Amino acid sequence: MTPSRLRTIRVELGARSYPIQIGVGALDRLPAAIARHAGRGAGLVVTDRNVWRHHGATLRQLFAPRRLPVVVLPPGEGSKSAAALDRVHGALHAHRIGRDGHVIAFGGGVVGDLAGFAAATWHRGIPLVMVPTTLLAQVDSAVGGKVGINRGGIKNVIGAFHQPVLVVADIGLLRTLPAREFRSALAEVVKYGMIADARLLQRVDRDAGPLLAGDPRVLVDVVAACCRIKARVVSSDETERGPRAHLNFGHTIGHALEAASDGALRHGEAVALGMRGAVRLATVSGRAPEAVGRTLESLLDTLGLPREAPALDPDAVFAKLKWDKKVRDGRLRFVLTPSVGSASVAPPMTDAEVRGVLRSLIGGTQGPTSAARARKEAQGRSGGRRRRA
Amino acid sequence: MTPSRLRTIRVELGARSYPIQIGVGALDRLPAAIARHAGRGAGLVVTDRNVWRHHGATLRQLFAPRRLPVVVLPPGEGSKSAAALDRVHGALHAHRIGRDGHVIAFGGGVVGDLAGFAAATWHRGIPLVMVPTTLLAQVDSAVGGKVGINRGGIKNVIGAFHQPVLVVADIGLLRTLPAREFRSALAEVVKYGMIADARLLQRVDRDAGPLLAGDPRVLVDVVAACCRIKARVVSSDETERGPRAHLNFGHTIGHALEAASDGALRHGEAVALGMRGAVRLATVSGRAPEAVGRTLESLLDTLGLPREAPALDPDAVFAKLKWDKKVRDGRLRFVLTPSVGSASVAPPMTDAEVRGVLRSLIGGTQGPTSAARARKEAQGRSGGRRRRA
Repeated sequence: MTPSRLRTIRVELGARSYPIQIGVGALDRLPAAIARHAGRGAGLVVTDRNVWRHHGATLRQLFAPRRLPVVVLPPGEGSKSAAALDRVHGALHAHRIGRDGHVIAFGGGVVGDLAGFAAATWHRGIPLVMVPTTLLAQVDSAVGGKVGINRGGIKNVIGAFHQPVLVVADIGLLRTLPAREFRSALAEVVKYGMIADARLLQRVDRDAGPLLAGDPRVLVDVVAACCRIKARVVSSDETERGPRAHLNFGHTIGHALEAASDGALRHGEAVALGMRGAVRLATVSGRAPEAVGRTLESLLDTLGLPREAPALDPDAVFAKLKWDKKVRDGRLRFVLTPSVGSASVAPPMTDAEVRGVLRSLIGGTQGPTSAARARKEAQGRSGGRRRRA
Repeated sequence: MTPSRLRTIRVELGARSYPIQIGVGALDRLPAAIARHAGRGAGLVVTDRNVWRHHGATLRQLFAPRRLPVVVLPPGEGSKSAAALDRVHGALHAHRIGRDGHVIAFGGGVVGDLAGFAAATWHRGIPLVMVPTTLLAQVDSAVGGKVGINRGGIKNVIGAFHQPVLVVADIGLLRTLPAREFRSALAEVVKYGMIADARLLQRVDRDAGPLLAGDPRVLVDVVAACCRIKARVVSSDETERGPRAHLNFGHTIGHALEAASDGALRHGEAVALGMRGAVRLATVSGRAPEAVGRTLESLLDTLGLPREAPALDPDAVFAKLKWDKKVRDGRLRFVLTPSVGSASVAPPMTDAEVRGVLRSLIGGTQGPTSAARARKEAQGRSGGRRRRA
């Protein structure tokens, strides 16, 4: 395949700035880009079984006759473990990857997080090249330097900030993605539009058909738009002390639902529900006009993203959410979107408001009246009073 | 004990600057200093059995009635392992230490490196308080943010840069140190003098008696002088791309000897031999006058630091050294001291020069003629020719 012109977006972080190269066939230029940005030392590829089955031969061919050492992990969140990390460290040791070497993360979010953390901790940090193979990783996890593993049921609780030296997002790789995974990732695209780019949201709405069909021209634009936002946010707030938190829009409730669903919900599906929850919280508490909620919910409907979680115990979800918050900073604070294309962190919500919204997202029949139902439930619970922080 | 006036040295790293507080009784002010520099969140103490036996009650009393959770590790290098790291992460989890919490490393280098790496990787980095209880940790490892564990026989191969928010070096804690450990740490003091501070070296020479007897007044001055140098070097080169490498004076050969001796040599003893080796390399290759070597070797003799390693196979030591270099950057480069109080990284040495010096450090009888012998051996091997880089 002849690569089309690449879009290059730069993440500005002083001496640690790096490019994101986006395009159909971007992979073809990977060896040259690696030599330029990661150096000519030895590299270790970390990937998973699914990705390697589809694209392993392509990658091998690109680097031939050099034979890259590869660690092939089982697909899925289970590989974000101390045991898998040890496997990657073991391979780095066995292949004598030194300070001048690098790690190539060839896969989705799990591979990127694990391989990135291995790179972050090998010789106190060696260069990391991200080659995201899923839409979710291309628009989100491959950019920004958050890497890590899970422990004791807490996601990413062990990790680091370690920026890649290069991100190569080949849109052509997305053809092999399962439909559900592809669709699920569109929730993150909607997230970017909601928090920072009303025009992106309009584009997604207008081109929903071609987008869902995987039209590469639309995809390149959409991935580039998302990466531009992420690059800007990461440049201004690398370690999430301020605006980077906006990227968590939909993720507080989303994470709790995802965890409680025990695999039934994909990450993006949970985030879609989390965003629905967040706009309902915003309208319930008078922090956003109902039109914002209507825009979001109708776009998520158009993209076929879920309106409700499978039957879960709302109390269990609430407990999970509360515990996550306790471990982090102890308060029920959410990122809300006062208007389409802008975000802010709201003062803490009451338990009643949050429980009401959670119930509106779980089980039973849902429909256009969800927001109204959430409001009613929340008001019934809190007796109409609101605690102000 | 009434604390004497504390010396405070600041490590300047912009927003991540931090103080080193040095003095007899400095521990008494630890709770207040932690509240100020690490915040009022929950803390986890990481320590080892020996330190806890001697000083656990003191620490408990300081924080009473608050009961600090504690992880007590087996003493020794074996605790710089993935298993021990998992234990500390497990305790952080069990005690629900969140982003607003902190880790207190209460021990020597092993405890600091392990606890520091746990702090570096928990929630992508939480505050770390270093309370070094050994002379070695007070003058060296507690300052500068290098943290990590060993793997597959390679020291610190898994790690991070994670600066503490506070270092408290209580000279009073050194009273319980075994004599050999105390003496061994003086090698690092000599290292600072050799690379950066001729006056410190003179002071150590003049006050060798009181210093070896543990006189707290001399110790406070010496620890402060070392920390001042380390703070300056770390401020100018946090991640060891330049001058921070000078701190490795004596450590290249030292590490290889330490590893090959399989516990027979303490770290400082190996560094003393490594420094003897480095000055011999410098004089052998005409990069330092012989007087520099005489000053160093006579001071190490005065301090009772070893003149030779126990019977080891020089080829095995050389292989280890070469392999370490291969893993790092592939070349036999050493930090040398062209004069007392200054350091530079020399062009690569030849195998013959290095082998010759290694032989002069191992087994057999040694004496004032070692340097001459090393020169002779190296010249015999390389036929008088030198490869210039």
